[in-house]
Amino acid sequence: MRSFGSDNHSGIHPQILKAIEQANRDHCVAYGDDKWSVGAKLQIEQHFGSSVETFFMFNGTGANICALESCVCSFNSILAAQTAHIVVDECGSPEFMTKASVKVINTENGKLSPELIKPFLHGIGDEHHSQPKVVYISQCSELGTIYSIEEIKLLANFVHQHNMYLHVDGARIANAAATLNCSLKEMISLTNVDILSFGGTKNGMMMGEAVIVVNPVLATNMKYIRKQSAQLYSKMRFIACQFSAYLSDNIWINNAKHANLMAQELRRGIEKFSIFEFTQPTQANILLLKMPKSIIEKMLKKHFFYIWDENKSEIRLVTSWNTTFEDIDMFLTDLKKSI
Amino acid sequence: MRSFGSDNHSGIHPQILKAIEQANRDHCVAYGDDKWSVGAKLQIEQHFGSSVETFFMFNGTGANICALESCVCSFNSILAAQTAHIVVDECGSPEFMTKASVKVINTENGKLSPELIKPFLHGIGDEHHSQPKVVYISQCSELGTIYSIEEIKLLANFVHQHNMYLHVDGARIANAAATLNCSLKEMISLTNVDILSFGGTKNGMMMGEAVIVVNPVLATNMKYIRKQSAQLYSKMRFIACQFSAYLSDNIWINNAKHANLMAQELRRGIEKFSIFEFTQPTQANILLLKMPKSIIEKMLKKHFFYIWDENKSEIRLVTSWNTTFEDIDMFLTDLKKSI
Amino acid sequence: MRSFGSDNHSGIHPQILKAIEQANRDHCVAYGDDKWSVGAKLQIEQHFGSSVETFFMFNGTGANICALESCVCSFNSILAAQTAHIVVDECGSPEFMTKASVKVINTENGKLSPELIKPFLHGIGDEHHSQPKVVYISQCSELGTIYSIEEIKLLANFVHQHNMYLHVDGARIANAAATLNCSLKEMISLTNVDILSFGGTKNGMMMGEAVIVVNPVLATNMKYIRKQSAQLYSKMRFIACQFSAYLSDNIWINNAKHANLMAQELRRGIEKFSIFEFTQPTQANILLLKMPKSIIEKMLKKHFFYIWDENKSEIRLVTSWNTTFEDIDMFLTDLKKSI
Amino acid sequence: MRSFGSDNHSGIHPQILKAIEQANRDHCVAYGDDKWSVGAKLQIEQHFGSSVETFFMFNGTGANICALESCVCSFNSILAAQTAHIVVDECGSPEFMTKASVKVINTENGKLSPELIKPFLHGIGDEHHSQPKVVYISQCSELGTIYSIEEIKLLANFVHQHNMYLHVDGARIANAAATLNCSLKEMISLTNVDILSFGGTKNGMMMGEAVIVVNPVLATNMKYIRKQSAQLYSKMRFIACQFSAYLSDNIWINNAKHANLMAQELRRGIEKFSIFEFTQPTQANILLLKMPKSIIEKMLKKHFFYIWDENKSEIRLVTSWNTTFEDIDMFLTDLKKSI
Repeated sequence: MRSFGSDNHSGIHPQILKAIEQANRDHCVAYGDDKWSVGAKLQIEQHFGSSVETFFMFNGTGANICALESCVCSFNSILAAQTAHIVVDECGSPEFMTKASVKVINTENGKLSPELIKPFLHGIGDEHHSQPKVVYISQCSELGTIYSIEEIKLLANFVHQHNMYLHVDGARIANAAATLNCSLKEMISLTNVDILSFGGTKNGMMMGEAVIVVNPVLATNMKYIRKQSAQLYSKMRFIACQFSAYLSDNIWINNAKHANLMAQELRRGIEKFSIFEFTQPTQANILLLKMPKSIIEKMLKKHFFYIWDENKSEIRLVTSWNTTFEDIDMFLTDLKKSI
Repeated sequence: MRSFGSDNHSGIHPQILKAIEQANRDHCVAYGDDKWSVGAKLQIEQHFGSSVETFFMFNGTGANICALESCVCSFNSILAAQTAHIVVDECGSPEFMTKASVKVINTENGKLSPELIKPFLHGIGDEHHSQPKVVYISQCSELGTIYSIEEIKLLANFVHQHNMYLHVDGARIANAAATLNCSLKEMISLTNVDILSFGGTKNGMMMGEAVIVVNPVLATNMKYIRKQSAQLYSKMRFIACQFSAYLSDNIWINNAKHANLMAQELRRGIEKFSIFEFTQPTQANILLLKMPKSIIEKMLKKHFFYIWDENKSEIRLVTSWNTTFEDIDMFLTDLKKSI
Repeated sequence: MRSFGSDNHSGIHPQILKAIEQANRDHCVAYGDDKWSVGAKLQIEQHFGSSVETFFMFNGTGANICALESCVCSFNSILAAQTAHIVVDECGSPEFMTKASVKVINTENGKLSPELIKPFLHGIGDEHHSQPKVVYISQCSELGTIYSIEEIKLLANFVHQHNMYLHVDGARIANAAATLNCSLKEMISLTNVDILSFGGTKNGMMMGEAVIVVNPVLATNMKYIRKQSAQLYSKMRFIACQFSAYLSDNIWINNAKHANLMAQELRRGIEKFSIFEFTQPTQANILLLKMPKSIIEKMLKKHFFYIWDENKSEIRLVTSWNTTFEDIDMFLTDLKKSI
Repeated sequence: MRSFGSDNHSGIHPQILKAIEQANRDHCVAYGDDKWSVGAKLQIEQHFGSSVETFFMFNGTGANICALESCVCSFNSILAAQTAHIVVDECGSPEFMTKASVKVINTENGKLSPELIKPFLHGIGDEHHSQPKVVYISQCSELGTIYSIEEIKLLANFVHQHNMYLHVDGARIANAAATLNCSLKEMISLTNVDILSFGGTKNGMMMGEAVIVVNPVLATNMKYIRKQSAQLYSKMRFIACQFSAYLSDNIWINNAKHANLMAQELRRGIEKFSIFEFTQPTQANILLLKMPKSIIEKMLKKHFFYIWDENKSEIRLVTSWNTTFEDIDMFLTDLKKSI
């Protein structure tokens, strides 16, 4: 089976699987006091700077909610785009875990800006209103768009001026780094992002994400938050070793570059038909485009992908680290037949 | 490194690791709609009966809190032994997730009984009191003791008479099955347990637990509970395939038998010294015994294990599926030298 | 001091205060098992029908959150207008208490309709999405607009078709009843509203609201919800006696009629100046209109009222059961001087 | 009807009711920005010291949960006696509101001490364990016993040494002050209590409690906590004026002295029969004693009181600010007949 449904439809990169095998020796102390965990954290610090603190988590929702829990009290609000993963895809987990309000901001392209946030900064100091405390953005966004380094800097600056935190959901941050051609330090630490959900699962790991705490204030209670939120893994070496492999030999960035390349290839192929309207730029590994319902139906019989917006007849295609040129050829060939 | 610290200090059983490798082919739909998940659930049904529903989870705390969330409203109470994992080892996750009260019952041996529960069943129907709704027991218990099938039946019957549910934390249920020499169906489904946390991690899996819902009422909302509690794994095939391997070729029960055997071997060896008082019977893979502080100190320099109760000078030793006779010999040899 | 700031700036109706004095005899059992509570509930049943269940609460937020708690699980969502009291004026209490998501719907006039709700009914049965379970409306709305009986019927019908509940925040329901010239039964019970926050404080009571449960399913756990949410009053007779007085001698409807009349009088007076744009119809006791900033400033020196939307230079004026013709004359006279 | 069931069976002291009448003039700004609120806070500062901050609340559970919310994060634990109001009488509201764990400590007399608390201070810094953060005591306790000033000082000192807060539930603090013959400042502020639930309802007010924040750290978020917990009263003047009257003319302490006197009188009368065993000293207005079931039954036909512990055949009698000598005579006369 091949799929353009999601990048989590792909499997485990062979070198990462090998790392699991290699870590599977002897007994090993649990919960992160092991050499694999120590090593992986050091590698992460090489990418983000030595002052960050790293907390491994099971999955993306887990990383997001732990990050948000560290930012807010229950009387705060979380600001996020209407397309944000925490708004539409986590079954209310952020409200459930933090008990804070999530305030939804409409955007054109899945990206927030100071201008879009400003109207939500009212009632400050007024006990009748939830107090805004953290802005959540996704890099790349759920629509496949990317914040420039300058945009993140501006956002972080704006957010801090208003006594708030900036949380970046980096489930696909490698894809953004590949496009921006920058280091993670340049994108996250040096722009003054406060806290990051650093994704691994979608880009070649078996499982595992990490919360990277840049603003040390947010690290204080994180270990308790993680445990209480059921995100503390006992046999931690088996997440840590994956991160080590992921960050070695440029696997993380090469995987992302490949996925992005495949997305461009697929877009070029589709654009050649001239009849499909792309609704967003393709800046990472996600394509959003309108397709007539009859063609969608035909294509769904042969290929796996999701309808993004039924009303607009919009579909989403996602490429991954192991999407092949053959996958794309096959898709385009079948698309040609379906028109 | 070798350890008697915990059974989660052991690694991954080779056949389970091999199953991960074998599942790592092709693309595969996420979140459980894949053939590995379907297959693993069928195998689980062969062990528990075809009417159970299975929900895979990341870890033991995750399984416990999802199970408990399905049982209670916030105005209910959860009854558990003072040694229960949910009372002492989950950083308040049950209260955090369910918002219900946890009422703690003192026991001699980590096991609850109708007699011990009865005094907590007051104020029923009175709005001033949290309403008891679920009894949590661990099989085997955190002290290494085991409920007989008859005891579980009695408990379930008692609990149902009082309009409550019975939740079994089976992080080490295989060890209990090995001792009782019974099937999981006999121990859980036929005794009318309502819901089970079925452990895999401690007994040879890389990671992964499952909530087994015996009472169908408790399955209604479980998929939402799991997602909202951040326990829904995207690349689900990689938990499912582990469970399949775990339940094949008797790995699950053989691993447990071995761990239990090692515990008996270790106990016999220690008993020969005649100077150490065991504080609990060793019915599974956990040993609890008193040891003079000076000997503890010497032994901790060479072996990894935990002090269970500082005041009582009580230590805990845990054997696992890959504890060896050599591990035990080494421990006993060093113990001899330390006396 | 006189105020157009809010109807809760007014005091206690003399007959209601008298009722408190008269209830202040002897000892009396607490928490609602007293004759005043029994009597008040009977009176409420005369207004709403004998099958409703009544739960007295301290305040409006308390009534709203208890009502919502009875409707939802944490994985549900609550749908409400962007101007809803629960969205903007309760400091996130609904999310805090229910842990559910609040989904905000933009409206022109503070009123929801099936058309506005429909786009939010997606992802039903999909574990990744909060499941919509209750629609919250305010009658009259926070903008002073009123749902017709027919509109409520339609909404209730629509909501039930989608397996949801309809919760009416009736903090100012008497004002709506005065305008619609209908009974509470016609407006609430016969339209199949599921649950109502029945306000008293804003319309002449010292304090006290009631949750009126029309759909009996929602009454099951209400007594526990109320206690746990800290809304159970010990000396209950002193809320109950107020409701009895409030519902006697037509005080409730006469107070509302008077407030509405004063609103019309004030609007007519302001409209005579021809330079102020009303932004909403004045259907109850709330006026919303634009006023040049310079005039607002002058008026605020002499009168108490709130700026509703700074950006639009929009103010809100609220009349109450004891607003007088003199209050209005004074306001209009000063307005004339300020132009 | 006369009752020894609870001190909240008594009504409103006439001067407090008069204060409500007198505050019922004019319009008045809501939510505490009024002269009555300012005045009442000043009076409270005269009793507790000028550095405290005061937050009026509706009821005792509301005051307790807001106080506790200010002290803990969800991964903390609250330590309290097994007889504590927050443990047995608030339907799990503390866990519901704070999501923290409540750890229950067994006591002989309802009072905590450093010795009793110490065994619960383990696992500090260990993410697997809820971190103890606040100790809750009741003065007077639910058993009618009283902490000496020295005992409170010692407790506060001990609690602070362990980086925790001390919260005093003072639902009946006036009764304790009457017995100790001390000022509230001596008992609370000078002993370094961190936060107090200051009760009024049980001792002659219609309704209303106050959270008195002594440790300024705990005041930071209280206004948001209060609003979000639905404890912010709109027509605040009507609680404030009650507190003003309550604290004027020594009503608060005279009421308590009278209630305590009545308790002593009642105890002396019962002791004369020589056949009833008192299970606690009577230091305030609560009597706990064993009474044969047959006598209890006879007495319950004529008098209102509660059985405290069915198994022990123990009853509770509570006197109040308006218990009369006649009430006591009647009880004793009927008791004589019942023997």
